[in-house]
Amino acid sequence: MEYNFSERIKGLKPSIIREIFKFTADPEVIAFSAGNPAPEAFPAKEIAKISAEVLEKTPVKALQYNITEGYYPLREALKERLAKKYGIGRDFDELIVVSGAQQGIYLTTKVLCNEGDTVICESPSFIGSLNAFRSYGLKLCGIEVEEDGINIEALERALKQQKNVKMIYTIPNFQNPSGVTMSLEKRRAMLALAKKYNVIILEDNPYGDLRFEGEHVASIKSMDEDGVVVYCGTFSKVLSPGMRVGYVSAPAEIVSKIVVAKQVSDVHTNILAQIVAKRYMTEFDFDGHIERISKMYGERCSFMAKQIDKFLAPQVRYVKPQGGLFIWCDLPEGVDMLDFCRRAVKNKVAVVPGSAFMMSESEPCGSFRLNFSTPSMEQIEKGVEILGKVLKEML
Amino acid sequence: MEYNFSERIKGLKPSIIREIFKFTADPEVIAFSAGNPAPEAFPAKEIAKISAEVLEKTPVKALQYNITEGYYPLREALKERLAKKYGIGRDFDELIVVSGAQQGIYLTTKVLCNEGDTVICESPSFIGSLNAFRSYGLKLCGIEVEEDGINIEALERALKQQKNVKMIYTIPNFQNPSGVTMSLEKRRAMLALAKKYNVIILEDNPYGDLRFEGEHVASIKSMDEDGVVVYCGTFSKVLSPGMRVGYVSAPAEIVSKIVVAKQVSDVHTNILAQIVAKRYMTEFDFDGHIERISKMYGERCSFMAKQIDKFLAPQVRYVKPQGGLFIWCDLPEGVDMLDFCRRAVKNKVAVVPGSAFMMSESEPCGSFRLNFSTPSMEQIEKGVEILGKVLKEML
Repeated sequence: MEYNFSERIKGLKPSIIREIFKFTADPEVIAFSAGNPAPEAFPAKEIAKISAEVLEKTPVKALQYNITEGYYPLREALKERLAKKYGIGRDFDELIVVSGAQQGIYLTTKVLCNEGDTVICESPSFIGSLNAFRSYGLKLCGIEVEEDGINIEALERALKQQKNVKMIYTIPNFQNPSGVTMSLEKRRAMLALAKKYNVIILEDNPYGDLRFEGEHVASIKSMDEDGVVVYCGTFSKVLSPGMRVGYVSAPAEIVSKIVVAKQVSDVHTNILAQIVAKRYMTEFDFDGHIERISKMYGERCSFMAKQIDKFLAPQVRYVKPQGGLFIWCDLPEGVDMLDFCRRAVKNKVAVVPGSAFMMSESEPCGSFRLNFSTPSMEQIEKGVEILGKVLKEML
Repeated sequence: MEYNFSERIKGLKPSIIREIFKFTADPEVIAFSAGNPAPEAFPAKEIAKISAEVLEKTPVKALQYNITEGYYPLREALKERLAKKYGIGRDFDELIVVSGAQQGIYLTTKVLCNEGDTVICESPSFIGSLNAFRSYGLKLCGIEVEEDGINIEALERALKQQKNVKMIYTIPNFQNPSGVTMSLEKRRAMLALAKKYNVIILEDNPYGDLRFEGEHVASIKSMDEDGVVVYCGTFSKVLSPGMRVGYVSAPAEIVSKIVVAKQVSDVHTNILAQIVAKRYMTEFDFDGHIERISKMYGERCSFMAKQIDKFLAPQVRYVKPQGGLFIWCDLPEGVDMLDFCRRAVKNKVAVVPGSAFMMSESEPCGSFRLNFSTPSMEQIEKGVEILGKVLKEML
């Protein structure tokens, strides 16, 4: 039989990152290509302890169907934490548990955007979100990211010129892939523009807790008094990504539509994982754990930066991030980026070609993304050295 | 701010069942309205044992990201079981793990159908699937279900007359909500029609293992030599629905598109749940467990049928199912079904109004659905007796 696929899915390709992720099953390859937490970053004993208790004492609760909105005690605990710690959540807001922040982005798109609408994105931006937008036939309009976040003048120009703009998608903290953190001034300016042009801000904050340098900057959601911001968070980077537990805090009217969309999508999120997340968050030292892993990532980041300085600078330029998982590197002019990435993989070092994060993969791009959370110190040293050799050969 | 929701989501209402499910949190209400496994049906000790072992010995594997296709050993074990036990899976087929069969149906729809296309459904049919179709702007064409399955002549007429028919959606075993099992002849006829009219069959089989009477009937997928059938299965009814683990067996070309769609939807399914499902299936007496719970459901079904005979017949008619979780009851002419359901809930018995399962809720419908897996024997007796009183008042 010959298959006719839907228009929305025909042009969608698998994420290059996921493809490389598969490829890096080869144990000899040093993977700077992942976005995974470090294997040492999981509170495995505590998770085992909670799981055992839950499955012994209240197995039916952990195995039976639950409501789409999410496990009630988890929702309450998240609301309290977000309010106290980050000033997120007003009277008009509600919270839904989703199967990872990816699902939050996906469902928000589904309920707010029609095919052909425009979403304004930082350029470069997270490929998983870009593909979610593409899967709903959205037009992507990319705005350059500067050292302190999105170019606000270019953002306003786009809001004026583009048709049917429904959302501005932003990762304000340690942006994936650029590593950039948006300044408070720019956050305020983005919020004002969203209000002025009646556009929703989709604020994606998977890495916000992983700060290892500088001061916390208020989230856009915390400044939102008009219900303009949909905020996505996740346990993936601070507890476990394999659990697939995230959350969306947004105006109740939007959340109620997300509930309907989630119901038909996967009914609800794995319930044992929700219970474990709730109990880990409230009964163990969650903040201490976050501090510990942030410190570890900070050390790896600094070490990787040193190796870049040693083996790749000054030809390769980068901005050292204040948190998160990634360093974004710009190759010198004249070096073919895709060729560089291919040669790197041949030499057993996997990096992600920057073009994966562009609005269109055919846009010119001379950058690549390095992850420092997954590799060991030894691998970081050896891997960057190899990248240095590859670059020298090409210069 | 005033929100503009997408066209596809504007008309979508929350499932009536889920709404009633919330309502039945009242412990005084006898819930015949759920679709849940019995609380006694979970192999809780075995799941606890496996989880503890996995989280102790290989915690990183259970907590880290995994690939979208699913946990490799689970996929292999499922392929083997489906092939050996049910003759499902040819050379051209592939298998992907999804977050419950609901996601299988949802993603298949996403990759195969454009807005405005038609899906032919049994009428009545499962509301979760109907809403998934609606969420992609599909036109639903309902064909009546007879005692041996869908009316084949009406199906062919629809295939001839309807425009842009992309899928035939069927639950051949113990259909939800009608309880009907499609005969082998009709399965063959449906497959032949699908080939003739170049339409995909979406075969949904959540209850197939829960047979307590009669003989196994071959699945449509097992007869498919041309890659016409997409088959959805799940662990929800035979292991745990809270785990959210299902699977799709379909031609590799279709599965590869589902992988892309799943990647942007939730990246992958909770990995611990996948490992637990795999190990329970291969290391414990899965078939013995299925036999045990099927027997239990058979007893409850027979007992409920007896109570219906005692308190509701002959005015109320029903066909006793050979498996599954539901009995579908037809009220006598002249009795207002919605009024009956409302009076029942007031008297602390929740049933699902049949209109929830129609292509349009405004279609005339004189039926309601009873679930026999969740309530206890005492509740079944008391609840049906109350329904009998409610009906008498109305006659």
